[in-house]
Amino acid sequence: MSAKPLDYENLNENVKKCQYAVRGELYLRASELQKEGKKIIFTNVGNPHALGQKPLTFPRQVVALCQAPFLLDDPNVGLIFPADAIAKAKHYLSLTSGGLGAYSDSRGIPGVRKEVAEFIERRDGYPSDPELIFLTDGASKGVAQILNAVIRTESDGILVPVPQYPLYSATISLLGGTLVPYYLEETANWGLDTDDLQQSVAKARSQGITVRAMVIINPGNPTGQCLSEANLKSVLQFCYSQNLVLLADEVYQQNIYQDERPFISSRKVLMDMSQPISKELQLVSFHTVSKGYWGECGQRGAYFEMTNIPPKSVEEIYKVASIALSPNVPGQIFLGLMVNPPKPGDISYEQFARESQGIIESLRRRAQIMTDGFNSCRNVVCNFTEGAMYSFPQIRLPPKAIEAAKRAGKVPDVLYCLKLLEATGISTVPGSGFGQKEGVFHLRTTILPAEEDMPAIMDSFKKFNDEFMDQYEDHQGYSRM
Amino acid sequence: MSAKPLDYENLNENVKKCQYAVRGELYLRASELQKEGKKIIFTNVGNPHALGQKPLTFPRQVVALCQAPFLLDDPNVGLIFPADAIAKAKHYLSLTSGGLGAYSDSRGIPGVRKEVAEFIERRDGYPSDPELIFLTDGASKGVAQILNAVIRTESDGILVPVPQYPLYSATISLLGGTLVPYYLEETANWGLDTDDLQQSVAKARSQGITVRAMVIINPGNPTGQCLSEANLKSVLQFCYSQNLVLLADEVYQQNIYQDERPFISSRKVLMDMSQPISKELQLVSFHTVSKGYWGECGQRGAYFEMTNIPPKSVEEIYKVASIALSPNVPGQIFLGLMVNPPKPGDISYEQFARESQGIIESLRRRAQIMTDGFNSCRNVVCNFTEGAMYSFPQIRLPPKAIEAAKRAGKVPDVLYCLKLLEATGISTVPGSGFGQKEGVFHLRTTILPAEEDMPAIMDSFKKFNDEFMDQYEDHQGYSRM
Repeated sequence: MSAKPLDYENLNENVKKCQYAVRGELYLRASELQKEGKKIIFTNVGNPHALGQKPLTFPRQVVALCQAPFLLDDPNVGLIFPADAIAKAKHYLSLTSGGLGAYSDSRGIPGVRKEVAEFIERRDGYPSDPELIFLTDGASKGVAQILNAVIRTESDGILVPVPQYPLYSATISLLGGTLVPYYLEETANWGLDTDDLQQSVAKARSQGITVRAMVIINPGNPTGQCLSEANLKSVLQFCYSQNLVLLADEVYQQNIYQDERPFISSRKVLMDMSQPISKELQLVSFHTVSKGYWGECGQRGAYFEMTNIPPKSVEEIYKVASIALSPNVPGQIFLGLMVNPPKPGDISYEQFARESQGIIESLRRRAQIMTDGFNSCRNVVCNFTEGAMYSFPQIRLPPKAIEAAKRAGKVPDVLYCLKLLEATGISTVPGSGFGQKEGVFHLRTTILPAEEDMPAIMDSFKKFNDEFMDQYEDHQGYSRM
Repeated sequence: MSAKPLDYENLNENVKKCQYAVRGELYLRASELQKEGKKIIFTNVGNPHALGQKPLTFPRQVVALCQAPFLLDDPNVGLIFPADAIAKAKHYLSLTSGGLGAYSDSRGIPGVRKEVAEFIERRDGYPSDPELIFLTDGASKGVAQILNAVIRTESDGILVPVPQYPLYSATISLLGGTLVPYYLEETANWGLDTDDLQQSVAKARSQGITVRAMVIINPGNPTGQCLSEANLKSVLQFCYSQNLVLLADEVYQQNIYQDERPFISSRKVLMDMSQPISKELQLVSFHTVSKGYWGECGQRGAYFEMTNIPPKSVEEIYKVASIALSPNVPGQIFLGLMVNPPKPGDISYEQFARESQGIIESLRRRAQIMTDGFNSCRNVVCNFTEGAMYSFPQIRLPPKAIEAAKRAGKVPDVLYCLKLLEATGISTVPGSGFGQKEGVFHLRTTILPAEEDMPAIMDSFKKFNDEFMDQYEDHQGYSRM
């Protein structure tokens, strides 16, 4: 009998082709080891609550009350919920049509989209239109929706930074488009060079690719750099000159660990520019409740905002969103709470401020501990994590390690990360999953393990790395150079 | 300057091509009228809570506690939550790795998938493997994942019932495949005829289409019929003989309003059959918390179960699911609660049973009121809603109405539904949105308006229909026949 429709050989080739290293070979091996009883530190994915970060109390109180609206009439509710959480729950329920159990409009609850627009206006100093804001089940879903509108055939190209978060490479593969890489410069703290961009586009065009969009991730994932205003301006000018839509992945905008380069949104920089660019350049910006000091990954709450996208196209994107009916409603409420948190004077303000500042300050210290830890290791160099949630050290693998990997049929950094996992339980993602220059190797780890565990984790890494280097380094060569 | 990347003319053609009538022209007009202050009865989509259905208390208590785990240590928690809800919340939290704020495995929480497998085993009498059950953000997302694995090129065809729920037509368009229609027979209570299936496949093949999958919706949407065991058996045999994977949309399995044909899952019928078919036929079955007496649409909780799909293909589907990281976790808890509800003897059992039975019994009465109401109208005939949540009356439009629609550039049933909306506020979906035989017209309405409002709604419909028929019917012709 011939192969059946869902046999491997009959599957859609784009499905088979796409790769998603964040939950790839390393993650699968880590899950196996965990099942066997080994203690695994899952630093493969930015998932703060899985590593012990406590949720912010106030938003959880509000969403709990929205889930159980009958409590609002319970005379005892005030014994376990503060009055401002009760008021906020009533507010959000009044914005829904039927509570958390009803589908919302496919773009999200209009009242929440209005709150998002007000947040953007406060942040950037320019008005934002709720009709151009769509809520989604996590930012990944929004990125896929926009790329699906952009990619028509395999000759449509999307400029993506390398190293990149593999959501982009995987989604582009799945949609049958072509990834056009541009390289971030590690020696310039993962800076973005517009000359290099120009070359990437020229090369792609010479191969018959129609470059249609550019992705930036700011703060960077996996690279952790924060783009300066001047950098963003040159990116916007470049996109305008090349007729590209800019997809600005700004999900880490609350995760900033230095003071020289605060987060500036692409939209603000665009609005600050003169016409025609400020009125013409097409921009889609992404944000989420999964990151920041929220870390509410499991709730799947996010939005994208469209700038200079014509109404007819917005309608088409709305139509496609409608097929899945509605993003999850609790996640929408979290998004409302994120853009509209407790204010000074509110009963819950102090606790909220204490909790959120505590998380960001600890992340800042952890970023430093991790960078310093990696830089103290033999053959490891690491830029400081200016923002986001990751450390991305370069591992200078000795030639013998590279040969050993080849013999084992593994990419060299995959071999390194697997050995690290087996020796220490630290589950990372090899740099090859994000893309890197040839012959250069990295790993990505989150900076999310609990602060008190961090020194032990870095000691354990250092010990492993020393042993690895001892094993593979050619002492007759390397060490005397 | 040339058109920009996200200008309408530059969008992906598959995005432009797909249609989703459930939130199409009628819904958009209804939303406009609502904004202008008109009272709209949204019966366009099966969204029970939006029409006043109250959520079941117990699952909401459990999920509220999971959202606010700090309450579990509050000495006053027992004042407003019953002990079994507290115990259940602790149980589900223990199944997560980091509570509701952490991404789960991309297939869903292992412990919840195990509960789903146990539910399937109790329901069908055959064991089910949790490794072949994936949780999704609503069943629509699961259907899209599977169709994405099946559809390779536009010559891949999917057999879809007509009338059909337009999730299927829209998703097939979006993925660039071809819909191969098979017609349900209205005069045989929307029965499915395997001879007709054979013809549909033969016709598609003669046009160069590789038919790869078949969709059944049982109970039917929009048609409301329940498939008999014999019917399901012949479908399974047909799929086996034609080498098709069967997608069984069984999201309405709790919504049954007659006793002659209780719900039987496709999987049970398959397992009851002999080898080789029971061990070889590829089947994917879908279920959700959005329907049944739950109606928790906004929570986006669902699963699909794969039968006879080889491990290598399951891995590919897992990999693609990983790109979006994780279905929303609260929706997964709802799914756990749905497959594992309170049992006799539990503190909350009586209330849960009373609430859930109350909803199903009322829906059963509403199905009858609606069918009878439609059948009492001039030029309207309607099969009884045996299951699901919809009534799908045929409207025999007079030739003059059809001509008037043509002049207005509208499909005739769109004109009818628009006039119904403007006159009464009842927001339905025209039959053309689901597909129907040529020259035959329908509308779909949910049976979800509150039972006490139902008589007034049917009176309002009847009055509108009388006036419509008065306006368009040729009294010299029709009425004397």
